[in-house]
Amino acid sequence: MEKKRIQIFDTTLRDGEQVPGCKLNTKEKVKIAKKLELLGVDVIEAGFPTSSPGDYQSVQEICKSVKKTIIVCALSRAVEKDIEIAGLALKYASRPRIHTGIGTSNCHIRYKFNSTPEKIIERAIYAVRYAKKFVEDVEFYAEDAGRTENEFLAKVCENVIKHGATVINIPDTTGYCLPKEYGDKIRFLKENVKGIHKIILSTHCHNDLGLATANSLSGIMNGAGQVECTINGIGERAGNTSLEEIVMIIKQNSYLNLFTNINTKLIYSASCLVSECTGMKVQANKAIVGINAFSHSSGIHQDGVIKKRETYESINPEDVGINQSSIILTARSGRAALAYRYKKLGYFLNKNSLDLVYSIFLKYADEKKEITDIELKKILEKANLNGKNHKILHTNHTNSRRINVV
Amino acid sequence: MEKKRIQIFDTTLRDGEQVPGCKLNTKEKVKIAKKLELLGVDVIEAGFPTSSPGDYQSVQEICKSVKKTIIVCALSRAVEKDIEIAGLALKYASRPRIHTGIGTSNCHIRYKFNSTPEKIIERAIYAVRYAKKFVEDVEFYAEDAGRTENEFLAKVCENVIKHGATVINIPDTTGYCLPKEYGDKIRFLKENVKGIHKIILSTHCHNDLGLATANSLSGIMNGAGQVECTINGIGERAGNTSLEEIVMIIKQNSYLNLFTNINTKLIYSASCLVSECTGMKVQANKAIVGINAFSHSSGIHQDGVIKKRETYESINPEDVGINQSSIILTARSGRAALAYRYKKLGYFLNKNSLDLVYSIFLKYADEKKEITDIELKKILEKANLNGKNHKILHTNHTNSRRINVV
Repeated sequence: MEKKRIQIFDTTLRDGEQVPGCKLNTKEKVKIAKKLELLGVDVIEAGFPTSSPGDYQSVQEICKSVKKTIIVCALSRAVEKDIEIAGLALKYASRPRIHTGIGTSNCHIRYKFNSTPEKIIERAIYAVRYAKKFVEDVEFYAEDAGRTENEFLAKVCENVIKHGATVINIPDTTGYCLPKEYGDKIRFLKENVKGIHKIILSTHCHNDLGLATANSLSGIMNGAGQVECTINGIGERAGNTSLEEIVMIIKQNSYLNLFTNINTKLIYSASCLVSECTGMKVQANKAIVGINAFSHSSGIHQDGVIKKRETYESINPEDVGINQSSIILTARSGRAALAYRYKKLGYFLNKNSLDLVYSIFLKYADEKKEITDIELKKILEKANLNGKNHKILHTNHTNSRRINVV
Repeated sequence: MEKKRIQIFDTTLRDGEQVPGCKLNTKEKVKIAKKLELLGVDVIEAGFPTSSPGDYQSVQEICKSVKKTIIVCALSRAVEKDIEIAGLALKYASRPRIHTGIGTSNCHIRYKFNSTPEKIIERAIYAVRYAKKFVEDVEFYAEDAGRTENEFLAKVCENVIKHGATVINIPDTTGYCLPKEYGDKIRFLKENVKGIHKIILSTHCHNDLGLATANSLSGIMNGAGQVECTINGIGERAGNTSLEEIVMIIKQNSYLNLFTNINTKLIYSASCLVSECTGMKVQANKAIVGINAFSHSSGIHQDGVIKKRETYESINPEDVGINQSSIILTARSGRAALAYRYKKLGYFLNKNSLDLVYSIFLKYADEKKEITDIELKKILEKANLNGKNHKILHTNHTNSRRINVV
């Protein structure tokens, strides 16, 4: 069966940036856009031009900076002025896309717009038709689709397809859906909307319940062809689907018969760049890009990884641009890890020496978070001072001398 | 249909703690255990006593400190010495549980143990029988179950049930499975293992692909009765299932017909305590407990939340112990949020004033990450200096005077 390509729509510079504590200037936005280009994303959502003069300028500069094959997208509400400004900001793009839309859930229709379902459909159609005056490629978002009844959502989709939408985004705006529910929604649209084969359905999931990635996966397994995501999963509230997670899920599971254009070896450097520019720190236990993602400190795991990496890692760190797995020494580490780290320093410990050194190590480690190479050498000195005649062999790797330490 | 109770097995103090950068002393471990007790977890995995004298002591002190209804659990390998030490460390527990087990995947059997499937079953049985000498409640883990063939896993389960295991943990040790795959595995065991109705099946999922929570959910939807998880999702590599995520998923989706014993209003304070004691920082966009989880800075979202909170939040922050949603001012904020924040400061701006102030605000905001109350007052001063006659009304809430600023 031929593999299906999933489009990666990166919204780090739009949804990712619109969060407290994160503000990028034009220079930084262009820098990140150039990295996204190298990474191989299909679409860069560059900003929301009507929101501020700075954002308008950023979108314009990104259009000038990235190569012609990349789609550059600008967000707008279903409002004439927004759409016009988005169209203007995209003037220099080779492949411009306007992303416009309106809330379709009862909650949004009633409380945000004080409107009716019929009027919302009219506004949706009008926005798409108006955006078509500026660009050919118009993506429509049915905001809060996650809480929108499927029948009404289908009606909205059918209408905007009729008026020229090329992509339809089904956002789970509040991070409300469970994976089965979200996948069923995508499948319902694939099976019930006239003209759905002409357009790409897009997932846009939020992580309020920790399910953004799982929901996106469920979406593409049920027929969506594009995933909206951000580097490090940044974005409104608990953030968006992490680009690195969904891309690696697709890469690791060939039976899904899907692929993306992403050069995964650039994932880690892209993560560092975004974290540095935005000031949004990545937690140590973040999947794939956290500093602990390929680190091991407990004895059982270290012993396994030293014997064979795959025992405790199903992803190869090199695939995401991380050189190697780390063996960190803590009070939960065992003899295998201790011997391994000493070996890296050039010390080969026999069984008796290792037993002695390990007992000293544990006392140190119970007091500290992590034992460094400097402390390992101190421990060795301490072991030699107790008068027992343990043999510790030291090889200096640089000149291959063997030194009998005791 | 009667709701099924899902047991929450917290392993913050064991799997959560065995990571680089995280080290808890006995006092801190007891403090966290007391918080977990208040939170209402069913099982506290207190440590891995054989790993170090400090950890042994911590497990012992936790047993003495928590109330009698809580199960205190200690980890061990399928090794006599480990099991003995675990049994000793649990001496003071009213409801002690030993958690023992062995790797069951081909990769673990071959590379970690250099053994055969038959010998692994023998060791599993021996470990369970040996643990039964110390405690009645023995949980068996089939390490790397995520990559273990279902038929062999079923055989392992059947054997350990026959010899007294009360709970069987199906860990996706390397974070390998996709949700459907993991759920199908649990269902396969429920349908094919003799005696499975006598024991509780437990999920223990890792987040290497960002799917730990989704996999745990899939597990309980397919028959598992216990979820192993940690506060803030800390743990080996990319961490474990986040307690706060799985608990809130269950709470928010009553159609699942599940419930837990967790007092969700203590989730946020538990998260802060664990982060503080371990030094493991929580990223801003962490689901439920990140500082941005209930913050809004983009104009569209702020406008919605000010009209009605539910438009952009499907979880009530009060349910997890957070007082209110935050409206943060950035370059992506709109007039509604600006007016709202001025109103909170006591300034009521009419339309013309708001337009003027907003244009000045945007210039400030394009330069900064966030606009504070102090800066809002500066902007107001600046707006008054331009000579135009906009009306800005100021109400001092403390004494209800109205001051016409212009």
